[in-house]
Amino acid sequence: MSISQKILNVDLGDKSYPIYIGCDLLSQKSFFEDHISGKQVMVVSNTTVTPLYLDRVTKLLGKFNVKVVILPDGEQYKTLETTNLIFDALLKAKFDRSATLIALGGGVVGDITGFAAASYQRGINFIQVPTTLLSQVDSSVGGKTGVNHELGKNMIGSFKQPQAVIIDVDTLDTLSDREYSAGMAEVIKYGLLGNIDFLSLLEANIESIMKRDQSLIIDLIYRSCKDKSIIVSQDEFERGKRALLNFGHTFGHGIENTFGYGVYLHGEAISIGMYMASMLSQFEGGLSQIDVDRIQSILMKANLPTSIKKGVNSENLIQAMSVDKKAVDGNIRLVLLNSVGDSFVTGSYSKENFQKVVSNFCQ
Amino acid sequence: MSISQKILNVDLGDKSYPIYIGCDLLSQKSFFEDHISGKQVMVVSNTTVTPLYLDRVTKLLGKFNVKVVILPDGEQYKTLETTNLIFDALLKAKFDRSATLIALGGGVVGDITGFAAASYQRGINFIQVPTTLLSQVDSSVGGKTGVNHELGKNMIGSFKQPQAVIIDVDTLDTLSDREYSAGMAEVIKYGLLGNIDFLSLLEANIESIMKRDQSLIIDLIYRSCKDKSIIVSQDEFERGKRALLNFGHTFGHGIENTFGYGVYLHGEAISIGMYMASMLSQFEGGLSQIDVDRIQSILMKANLPTSIKKGVNSENLIQAMSVDKKAVDGNIRLVLLNSVGDSFVTGSYSKENFQKVVSNFCQ
Repeated sequence: MSISQKILNVDLGDKSYPIYIGCDLLSQKSFFEDHISGKQVMVVSNTTVTPLYLDRVTKLLGKFNVKVVILPDGEQYKTLETTNLIFDALLKAKFDRSATLIALGGGVVGDITGFAAASYQRGINFIQVPTTLLSQVDSSVGGKTGVNHELGKNMIGSFKQPQAVIIDVDTLDTLSDREYSAGMAEVIKYGLLGNIDFLSLLEANIESIMKRDQSLIIDLIYRSCKDKSIIVSQDEFERGKRALLNFGHTFGHGIENTFGYGVYLHGEAISIGMYMASMLSQFEGGLSQIDVDRIQSILMKANLPTSIKKGVNSENLIQAMSVDKKAVDGNIRLVLLNSVGDSFVTGSYSKENFQKVVSNFCQ
Repeated sequence: MSISQKILNVDLGDKSYPIYIGCDLLSQKSFFEDHISGKQVMVVSNTTVTPLYLDRVTKLLGKFNVKVVILPDGEQYKTLETTNLIFDALLKAKFDRSATLIALGGGVVGDITGFAAASYQRGINFIQVPTTLLSQVDSSVGGKTGVNHELGKNMIGSFKQPQAVIIDVDTLDTLSDREYSAGMAEVIKYGLLGNIDFLSLLEANIESIMKRDQSLIIDLIYRSCKDKSIIVSQDEFERGKRALLNFGHTFGHGIENTFGYGVYLHGEAISIGMYMASMLSQFEGGLSQIDVDRIQSILMKANLPTSIKKGVNSENLIQAMSVDKKAVDGNIRLVLLNSVGDSFVTGSYSKENFQKVVSNFCQ
């Protein structure tokens, strides 16, 4: 393994698995062969990623009985109906419990494929090959899988850990600038919620990072996944500390849901959501103006939005937020900051301050 | 608790739960209140059970915010689409992760509701109130939940343990004779696959059992659930021993699938399937003619079928069996008997004998 490759082991007892991060990993059979136990393999990808990387992956799977399912691309297809396309293909191929799914694509492909793996015959193996920065730093760790419902994002799903995650950073070469920035939102999140050293490193190198310096990218994916895995190892099923990872997400999901899928990329909505949560943290008396400015600055340097497009009304946004999974008996729980790098989960904040933040952002 | 009530604890570490079995349990709040932790409760039932028992159950839930979803009745509705009706209702009610589902009905209601509980917001609590003999002795234990796909039965689902199972045997009063017999197929199964004493008890009391003697029923539900729970505790995710519980099921699922849902009740198909597996066990040289006759006799005394209706062709039946979840890389694994009360799982049996059994049964 060359100097530019890293392995992170996600420690979850008998569900532990490795994340391989490096260049040119999609030319090496062993990453796949080591984690496939049966003969049946189904690669799940989408219409965008298929022409770019599908052949490269199937070429590595010569030992196996390989089938392919190609899903439509886009968050609006992250539904039960699309998941059913995978079930159809698995059953038509007569694949059984020994089959392995390979998710080749971004977060949508990964989330749907993971849910299909969790639910087909009550659970089969799967390997993730995330091809976007967002999915590499976010869905690689934690086992959250699922689909959207018209009344809420990620409302249907499972916790399901993969056998391995293979992150070939070469796949980022084909990513648009907008998608790359959206991925950076989740990277910045790890700095803001608990790792000020990491945030400083991002700030110091943001220009090279935005120019996609590969050794920096490998390092920041590794550190992001590691920060996430430490939290997930302590709280696999999100009964406590793991909720910190939702910093910006309750606001963000509300924004995505209100505008409809496809208007904002997930990372863009999370960027705005983190900035909204920072504002509320300031109104609640915890966060300094200096920290709020620092947060806005790093988001803007990553070419991420910190304000909401026109045309949304604050009541609708609050309504959309109230079906969030962090709600308990109807009370919206939020992740707020004491300072940059120091976050906490709370359901007890001033409802006036909350309303004020939402109104300020809804022009 | 009166003398006619029993409690069985299903031992699954931190997923352990009690099964309450007795008369008139649906008049006692505490069975529900003790196992509901939030305020939000959704009762899931079907059009047949609702007029009989829904009011009785909702009356016990005065402390909670209660909603109801009524599903169409029948195996043909055990689908992803029907599961989505539960998700719709949960989201419209803005129910969050603290919500509890109550499955009030037979196996179909239990399996769908369990899968919805496993998948809504990646997992919420549920309580089972099975109202048929089949669901009381079968789906009460083991956490298998799921739905059918047009290409195979129970192909989509999860392992999900309930908080509690409440079995009020009074609900059997409204069960048709045919449904009652179908439940007896699973009861007899526990005798055949591993408990010859239990089989002898059934044989000795079959007439009173078929007349629905309540104290006998409570005892046989308790013993069936206990036998199943011992096996499930040793192998929650069906990697080994648990497969024994599928005695008769690979043939049975093939029959159900070939005829289409609704022609045979599940227990009826399992009865035929157990008899087919017994025939194959005999052809393979393990099972004696005396044991085969003994098996047919007890099934017939329970008014269960031991032959397949006309009109099915053996190729189609084998085809339908080959998508069974017990298959491994395409090989159909079966549960066979050495003798009554002594079963084993195998993929190595004579394919000629297998063909012969299927042909003999397909007229």
